Parts: sequence; C-alpha cells; structure tokens
Amino acid sequence: MLREIREQPQVAARLLTEGRGEVAALARVLRRRQPPFVVFAARGSSDNAAVYGKYLVETLLGVPAALAAPSTVTLYRRSLRLRGALVVGLSQSGASPDVVEFVAAARRAGALAVAVTNRPRSPLADAAAHVLWLRAGAERSVAATKTFLAQLLVLAMLVGAWGRVGTLRRGLARVPGAVEEALALDAPVTALARRWRDATGCLVTGRGYGYPVALETALKLKEACYLMAEALSGADLLHGPIALAAPGVPVLLVALRGPSLAAQRAVTRRLAARGAEVALVTDARRAGPPAATVLPLPQDLPEPLAAIPAAVPAQLLAWHLAVQRGIDPDRPRGLRKVTRTR
Amino acid sequence: MLREIREQPQVAARLLTEGRGEVAALARVLRRRQPPFVVFAARGSSDNAAVYGKYLVETLLGVPAALAAPSTVTLYRRSLRLRGALVVGLSQSGASPDVVEFVAAARRAGALAVAVTNRPRSPLADAAAHVLWLRAGAERSVAATKTFLAQLLVLAMLVGAWGRVGTLRRGLARVPGAVEEALALDAPVTALARRWRDATGCLVTGRGYGYPVALETALKLKEACYLMAEALSGADLLHGPIALAAPGVPVLLVALRGPSLAAQRAVTRRLAARGAEVALVTDARRAGPPAATVLPLPQDLPEPLAAIPAAVPAQLLAWHLAVQRGIDPDRPRGLRKVTRTR
Repeated sequence: MLREIREQPQVAARLLTEGRGEVAALARVLRRRQPPFVVFAARGSSDNAAVYGKYLVETLLGVPAALAAPSTVTLYRRSLRLRGALVVGLSQSGASPDVVEFVAAARRAGALAVAVTNRPRSPLADAAAHVLWLRAGAERSVAATKTFLAQLLVLAMLVGAWGRVGTLRRGLARVPGAVEEALALDAPVTALARRWRDATGCLVTGRGYGYPVALETALKLKEACYLMAEALSGADLLHGPIALAAPGVPVLLVALRGPSLAAQRAVTRRLAARGAEVALVTDARRAGPPAATVLPLPQDLPEPLAAIPAAVPAQLLAWHLAVQRGIDPDRPRGLRKVTRTR
Repeated sequence: MLREIREQPQVAARLLTEGRGEVAALARVLRRRQPPFVVFAARGSSDNAAVYGKYLVETLLGVPAALAAPSTVTLYRRSLRLRGALVVGLSQSGASPDVVEFVAAARRAGALAVAVTNRPRSPLADAAAHVLWLRAGAERSVAATKTFLAQLLVLAMLVGAWGRVGTLRRGLARVPGAVEEALALDAPVTALARRWRDATGCLVTGRGYGYPVALETALKLKEACYLMAEALSGADLLHGPIALAAPGVPVLLVALRGPSLAAQRAVTRRLAARGAEVALVTDARRAGPPAATVLPLPQDLPEPLAAIPAAVPAQLLAWHLAVQRGIDPDRPRGLRKVTRTR
C-alpha cells in the first residue's frame, strides 16, 4: 500500500500523457450528444470518485448527475429510462458484477456507456462503448490508493475537455508535482497517527470538492485501521451528527480554497468549541480557527484539482495509523481485492 | 421524542385520508408531464427519506433519480439544467435555507418544483409549485421521528398514484396498523438497548428499501445516543467496512422480504462468522442465519411499504439507548430543531 501511495506522481503523469487521446475522443462525442444527465455506477472507493465526478459535472457543466443504486437493476430487475444519458461505471478491477450489470443494462437502454477502469480487458470494459483506462499499473494492496487518485484525475481530464474548462485544463499539468509535494507530509502525518492511535472513532468532514476526499479518507480508516470513521459533509454534520463531537473523538477536516472554505471554517469553529481535536487538510494560506494540526497542501491549484493531492495525506494517515495499531494495512481482515456484490 | 414516536399510527392515518387530494392532483400533473428524471433535495433525516424516494421512483417507475448536492447552487452558484425534471425538496420545517434555495433555483430553471414539508406556510412551500403537507402536527423533539415516517408515506402515496402501482396502493391502508404493531416491539428493544449500552460504535446495514431505514437508524443513534453508528448498504459493507465487524461491535441489520432478502442473509452470515452480535429487523418468516435478537415486523406489506414500520424499532432503540446512556434524547448536545446550513 505504501509503495503504491508513493507511485502516485508517476501514475498521474502517465495518465495525463497516455490517456489524453481517449479522453479527447470521448469529449468530442459528449459535445455532440449533449447528454441531459449523468449517472455514475460504482462501489467502495470508486463510489467516492463518483461523488467527485458529480461535483465536476454539476458545478462546471451545469449537468445534473446521480449516483446509481445498482440494486435497481441487479436485484429489482428494473430497466431505467436512460436513453441519451451518460452512464459512467467505475471499477478498479472492472470485475464488480453489479457495476458491470448496471452499465450493460444502461447501454441496452440507449445510454452512452463509459467504463473507467484499471483493466482495459475486463467485463466492465466489454460492457461499455468507451473505456478510460487508468494505466495505474497493477494494484496489489486491498485498499485502493493509486487507482482512486487516477479515477479523480481522469474525471477531471474528461470534464475539462468536454466543457473546455480553461482553469481545469491549465491546472492539470501541475497535478503530478502537487501529489509529489503532498507525499512530503509523511512526517506530520506520522505524528498525527501516533496521537490518534487509541481512538475508537473519528469524524471526517469536507464540503464541496473536499467531500469526496472526506468519504475516501473515512473508508480507508475503516478498512485499513478498523476505526469507526464517520464521513459527513460539513452541512450534514451540523444536521445531527455534530452531537458526536467531543474531546477524545478526533476530527479530520478537509477545507479547500474556494466557495466551500468559509462554510468549513465555520464547522471548524463549531468543532473546536465542542473540544474536538481537529486536524486540518487545507490549501488555504491562513489556517483559520485554531486547529491542533495543519497538513498544508500545495496552494496553486484550482479547487477541483486541489482535491487530488488532498487525498494523499489521508492515504498516508491510513497506512501509518494501521501500523501504529498493529494492523497489516496490506491485508485487512475480511477483505479481498475484488469484491463481488450484486 | 417518545410521545411523537407513539403518535405515528395516527399521523399515518391522517395523512392517508387528508393528504389524498393533494397527492392525486400532483400525480395527474406528473402523468401528463412525464419528467425524464427526479432530483431530491434534503438534509439530515429528510435526506434519508429522499433515498427511499429514489428507490420508489427507480424500481417502480423506471425513472432515474438523484440526490441533490445543494452546494452546487448555494456555494458554487451554478444553475443546473433541470427543465422538465421533477425536483422534490424535503424539509420538516420548510426552513432549511439550502433546500429552499435549491428548489427555488430548480423552479427558475424550468423544473416541476415540489415541497414535502410539515409546514405548509414556510419558505420551502413558497418556493415550490406544489406542496405535499405532512400534517404530522408540531414536532418538538430535535430528533425527527413522525415527520420522517410521514415523508416515507407521502412519497409512497405519490409514486403509487403517479404510476398507478397496484401493490403499493392496495397496501397503503394497512400502514397505520403495521406501525401500531411495530410499536409493540418496545420490550425487546428495551432489552437490546440494555445490551448495547456500553458500545462505542455499531454498524447498521440494509439493502434496497431497507437501506434508507438503516441510514435513518444510524442518524438517530448518532444524534440521540452519541454512538458512532456507521450505516452501509449490504453491498458497500462488503466493499471494505466489513473489516470493522468484530465481537463488541453490535450490528443492526434490516432485512425486508423481497429481492434484497437473500443478499442481506448472506451479509448476516458473513457478520456472524466474524463474531459480530447481530440484531435483525425483519418481516421474513424464517429469520435466516442465527441472530442474537430478532425484531419481527408485520408480514403482510409489500417491500416498499414494509420499510415504513421498519423505522419504528429503530426510533425506539434510539430513545431507549439514549436513556440507558444517561442522555436526554429530547435535547441532544449541539443541536437545534431547525438547522440553517447553506
């Protein structure tokens, strides 16, 4: 897992170069067809990448986006009215039966079916009309890291090309360097892992593009560290679960510069007032309200792209915390690399 | 909170009778307009009702449905292409600024805007073209119970009328009685609460129509009991967080008769094999694999409607567990009845 986390600058650079043609070809199709809405189908880490895709498509293109409930197709056997829609199935292995089945059914229903996968020869790739290959190299760790980061990046490449989004396209070349810089947070993350070692639960919160990062952080902490990690958007946190915040329940808060920053700063203040120990993952120059730990991110990326290096300290935290807790993060109990759910 | 939980049979009966006209009028509009997709906008408990709405609309009508990320409108100031879509804002108070703003923007963009609320004179009702009034009476407890149940019911009424879904429409009249029967689970739920008293975290899982019930159960346990309660669909649980399952981490598992039952039985077996203490909320005749506790539901409702009484033991558990843990469930720390997020 740690080796794969550290490979990520190279993974990002390779995808930017070698994946460009596939992305451009699909973007041309999308500009011609103008799908009225987008549905993402995924499970686990890929589902968190799908949430990132939803923010890209909605905030940059104004196109509504949904996350699929695959059981509609796999269990309830209902065909959805998806003619003309863009349906994106995301699966590292390309072998998750429910995602494959959802994408195949969508294609039969007249959707433009796209596979985002690390295996260009897989059932998911076969089911789709277009494949975006992640080119991340074999991922051996059960906990996905480099394929998750590559999913974020390829979605940003696609939306940048589809909508000719200048800020996004100009920033892409900086991503591999920013991921490299985020890897340098290893020392403060190790210190944080030491402080969190005996926690029984934690909160992870983000807003806007920070929200999928929070979701993925919590998933990593659950699967690799057996830590009850509760991920919530800053807004949903205030709608009830803020009651959980207390001394002894550490909080990881993702706050990215952009429209969501002020809202997340208000959340930080509410958490600090309740005595929670807050660790801040942020690219903001001033960290805002007092936080116990600040993990600073590179400051020269637009918000949608800043989310990509923001995933790195979270991955490092999962790895170091697992080690601190005496767990082999490469072999978490009860899990296999390919999960076959329907 | 307990009084409001116990009012629910009357709340359901009143809504079925008095709300019928509003529902029928809106259903006629929907059959005429045939929206190509549906977007639900909500926060907190209302967002869990929205997930239930998504299953209804997708599995019974074949119409794709999304949950809104309100920040797209409130923070990122992006107008979504929603012409012709059905947009349903759900808010008990009708005063959640982000939900109001999302619905108002959707209406300006040409969507059919509907408010589901307990306050027919509220900003949300004003923003919408149609109002479905819950008629649940004033809800004083911070933790929503009767308004959540009424949201589920009014969504089932609407989808039943919109798609002329016979099984749904025939079952509706049985809902108040089934809710009454579920209230009789008070004694076994009290015993369960005693056993869970010292838990620091728990898992709650459901699949299909049981999934929104699991989400709402976990939210109640978080806000009223300060318990780290992790809600996951049975499939997502297997994609990573199953690593959390262990002796000492109790699990509440919702398994409703229907297409998802076999999948949830497999999840029960996986959890039992990992030594987890499983409490089963189910309307199945045979409880399936050995579970420490079975909370039996009425067995004469179709799956979509069985989800409604299934919410009751979860509410009772939240109340009794709060009391066991020395918490006043009517006044959880850090919360107010109307949460103003943007």
